[in-house]
Amino acid sequence: MRTRRAVLEAAAHVIGTRGYEAATMAEIIQRAGVTKGAVYFHFRSKDALARAVIREQTDPFVPPVSDSRLQDAIDFTHQVALALRSDPMIQAGTRIAVETTFSDEPLVPYQAWIDIMATMFTEARDNGELLPAVAPDRAAEFFVASYMGVQLFSRAATNRADLPERVTTLWKHTLPGLASPGALSHLDPHGRPAHVTV
Amino acid sequence: MRTRRAVLEAAAHVIGTRGYEAATMAEIIQRAGVTKGAVYFHFRSKDALARAVIREQTDPFVPPVSDSRLQDAIDFTHQVALALRSDPMIQAGTRIAVETTFSDEPLVPYQAWIDIMATMFTEARDNGELLPAVAPDRAAEFFVASYMGVQLFSRAATNRADLPERVTTLWKHTLPGLASPGALSHLDPHGRPAHVTV
Repeated sequence: MRTRRAVLEAAAHVIGTRGYEAATMAEIIQRAGVTKGAVYFHFRSKDALARAVIREQTDPFVPPVSDSRLQDAIDFTHQVALALRSDPMIQAGTRIAVETTFSDEPLVPYQAWIDIMATMFTEARDNGELLPAVAPDRAAEFFVASYMGVQLFSRAATNRADLPERVTTLWKHTLPGLASPGALSHLDPHGRPAHVTV
Repeated sequence: MRTRRAVLEAAAHVIGTRGYEAATMAEIIQRAGVTKGAVYFHFRSKDALARAVIREQTDPFVPPVSDSRLQDAIDFTHQVALALRSDPMIQAGTRIAVETTFSDEPLVPYQAWIDIMATMFTEARDNGELLPAVAPDRAAEFFVASYMGVQLFSRAATNRADLPERVTTLWKHTLPGLASPGALSHLDPHGRPAHVTV
């Protein structure tokens, strides 16, 4: 398992730095400091490695659980914003999402994020926190897509230094179309400080 | 000027197909069918070529002008959605935006889009169409960032076949946080058919 982890970390570094197309198995193998045979034992191809990086990227997150599932969703996206500044695995995951395609499972780079948001939005709906017209699954897809754009924009603008502020802006713009009036007045788009550490 | 245009179209095709990093000047020159000297007379480097593609991509658009500048903004984004399905210049522009960085002018791939949206949002505010808390410039930045994510998601999901529908969803989610109640009831997030052709 140490070899597998070393290869994944090397892959995240190389893909995060060079981009998916320019990353080569040779450079990943060299950086991991393991034998070529050991790498191919765990991952048959760069595609297999990319899928493993994608599966790995959501692992460190434990979405908060409180009385307000919509506030939990806000806090979670701020946790992810902080991780995007420093975690090579999630940084590589975003490059894979925008630079390559998986024709058999096209949404694989996004799916785990959609599932997390859809669960929180569904529970928020059951709590009466959503406007009646909002469909939790569709809203989760929209939110993940929009968040991807916001973090790419922040990467271009400030190497993600302003990402927490842009995530707050994203919520300010979208909460009026998501939250019931009763929920809206209690929600903090900045996230609750105690829940935003990773 | 024919040489310049041929080189730009070749660059758009090669960057749109291979991505920015993997695109080479050699392949662009070969596809353009012109001499190396002619290319370098117009564009000193791949970076210069990328900037020219970015400048070129907004040219075909004539944003509509009607009594409702917010409806004009909606219609404009639907025009862009249709162009994203077929126009190599704008497709290449999105790949350049997400795959490279311009350290001297980091927002250059986004700026023309932001300017167009900011103008329409500012005029919408002057017409009383925006909620008082909305700052047109910040809203334009948010909207362009979010739109980038939505079109990337649609590219992954359906090669942009569902992009018009996803742009409609984007507006449904964001109009309640943008538009004054009086304006909201008159706006069509699907865009007005007559204004959505390109």
